[in-house]
Amino acid sequence: MDRIVVQAPSGAYNIHFGRDIWQQVQQMARGYDQALVVSDKNVAALYGHRLPFPISPLEPGEGTKSFETIAALVDDWAERGLDRYSLVIALGGGVVGDLVGLTASVYRRGIAYVQIPTTLVAQVDGGVGGKTGINTPRGKNLVGTFYQPWGVFIDPSVLSTLPDREITNGLGEVLKYGVVNDPALFEVVRGHVDAFYELDLEVVAPVIRRCVEIKGEIVAADERDRGLRRILNHGHTFGHAIEKAAGYRHNHGEAVLMGMLLEGRLAHLLGLLSSADLAAIEDALFRVKLDYSFAHLDKGEMISALIHDKKNRKGSISFILPREIGRAEEVLLSVEDVEKYWDEVIRG
Amino acid sequence: MDRIVVQAPSGAYNIHFGRDIWQQVQQMARGYDQALVVSDKNVAALYGHRLPFPISPLEPGEGTKSFETIAALVDDWAERGLDRYSLVIALGGGVVGDLVGLTASVYRRGIAYVQIPTTLVAQVDGGVGGKTGINTPRGKNLVGTFYQPWGVFIDPSVLSTLPDREITNGLGEVLKYGVVNDPALFEVVRGHVDAFYELDLEVVAPVIRRCVEIKGEIVAADERDRGLRRILNHGHTFGHAIEKAAGYRHNHGEAVLMGMLLEGRLAHLLGLLSSADLAAIEDALFRVKLDYSFAHLDKGEMISALIHDKKNRKGSISFILPREIGRAEEVLLSVEDVEKYWDEVIRG
Repeated sequence: MDRIVVQAPSGAYNIHFGRDIWQQVQQMARGYDQALVVSDKNVAALYGHRLPFPISPLEPGEGTKSFETIAALVDDWAERGLDRYSLVIALGGGVVGDLVGLTASVYRRGIAYVQIPTTLVAQVDGGVGGKTGINTPRGKNLVGTFYQPWGVFIDPSVLSTLPDREITNGLGEVLKYGVVNDPALFEVVRGHVDAFYELDLEVVAPVIRRCVEIKGEIVAADERDRGLRRILNHGHTFGHAIEKAAGYRHNHGEAVLMGMLLEGRLAHLLGLLSSADLAAIEDALFRVKLDYSFAHLDKGEMISALIHDKKNRKGSISFILPREIGRAEEVLLSVEDVEKYWDEVIRG
Repeated sequence: MDRIVVQAPSGAYNIHFGRDIWQQVQQMARGYDQALVVSDKNVAALYGHRLPFPISPLEPGEGTKSFETIAALVDDWAERGLDRYSLVIALGGGVVGDLVGLTASVYRRGIAYVQIPTTLVAQVDGGVGGKTGINTPRGKNLVGTFYQPWGVFIDPSVLSTLPDREITNGLGEVLKYGVVNDPALFEVVRGHVDAFYELDLEVVAPVIRRCVEIKGEIVAADERDRGLRRILNHGHTFGHAIEKAAGYRHNHGEAVLMGMLLEGRLAHLLGLLSSADLAAIEDALFRVKLDYSFAHLDKGEMISALIHDKKNRKGSISFILPREIGRAEEVLLSVEDVEKYWDEVIRG
């Protein structure tokens, strides 16, 4: 049994890896009066039968992350009699994890939940760390909590049912860990991007494990996103703006990949990143199945989205920029600076 | 400047007392980029002018504690540009405190807020301790968080604008602190119930301070309501059932007073509380302006409400019963036990 312990300040929990996690979840559930699986309909159809618990199905898609769904879940959980002796199991990708985590954190002021992430992005990022959230018309994840799961259970073999686009989505976060924290990881992924699309578990499983290890260490050091944890926002400042300016046609990981490209170039233009490292980053990014075109992005809308980013303070825009592969730091830029570099950043 | 420090595990904060709290709130707000007061319309009209900040007014009443209001507040706060460098000031009674606390805990995954409780019940209970919540059709405070304020500011002189019914509402919690924790406090309040209706601050202010001190110590020892803090639920098991069975015609404190009477009698019937102590409790309760009539309560509905209490586990109903004045403990009873004693408890 392979596992990592996350020593979060609010409490330690285990992240389990492997094909036998389904038995381990059942074992954990024996400590509770009842268990409920919450999953999206697609994932429930594929993997719901692996757990002998009732399933509450959700509509797939980002639109499910809403106040309305939380209210419906609370109603469902109350009707089923879930209480502080119950366990909720979030089975699915980021939408399910964010939504169930938030609902678990507010239902009866907090009940136990675990994550079984079933997408690459959720396995390496969203499923670990306790950030929960829903969207409102005024912003993505504008409402949420920090609420660590009681455990995370990762079976990389479930990724075999994902379309290529979902692998791309996860590769954004995977490459990000390499760029901000781990040059060796970066090189492994850069050299084996195909292995992700073919789901060669000999390559993919250890990479997922390493990403989770990095995330766990960062969360243990900075659970509430005040310092160190913010380096995980590399690619996310431009990434969030791209998501917004393009009307959410890109998924999160695609936008992060595009954001990493732009932020890598910005770091180079600012004299923070060497040409060789930028070339290596571009090489890795371009191996991912993604069209890095920015023609559809309106500069004015991008700037407006950047100004409204929740990481900002008083007109300065916060970027996490690479200094070299494996190391990044926060850089605050004015709107004017961003406007000045925009054309060059886009052009490459 | 009089203050108490609450050493909550999630972080320490101060509770300030006196007429100069309005200046102290303004001083604290200088550490933030912007401040916003959220208040109900009645309270805003009376005390809003004491703070030089914009005010978001809410409709008064328990109906405001809903998902809809949270969504509206989130929208308002986003439009005003509130972020992690902003301070929200909850000015009002329990409804405002519960709602603003919950919204502050989930808006951008948590921003700073302070409480200025303006009712007796909020000053001695709700404003301190970090329990937040809203109601759903399936239960009061079914959704909430534990989220400590950055500070609490209590000016007992504002109680002068409260109607008698609101004083009664607060006296429930005040007497409860005496019964479960402090015989001296109990005797002071028992001997000076009139001083609360006349708002004799020489009596009332030190009593409020002592209640807050008790609450602060209990919250420091058991922030998340797993052990010691549960003694504060004395009067609340029957109290919640009375609220529900009577269709919420009683306010919370009235129901707690009625619940304390019934739970005191139950403790005596079970041989846990002496006749003398029960007589003292009844004497104190009957000095409060409240009609202790139970004729309108249907036994079946009461039992049903008790069974669905969120403090229960597997059929046993949890009561916090006094063993003597100043000491209480949890007692688990079966539904059958409660049914058996019901008529005697009601009759007295």
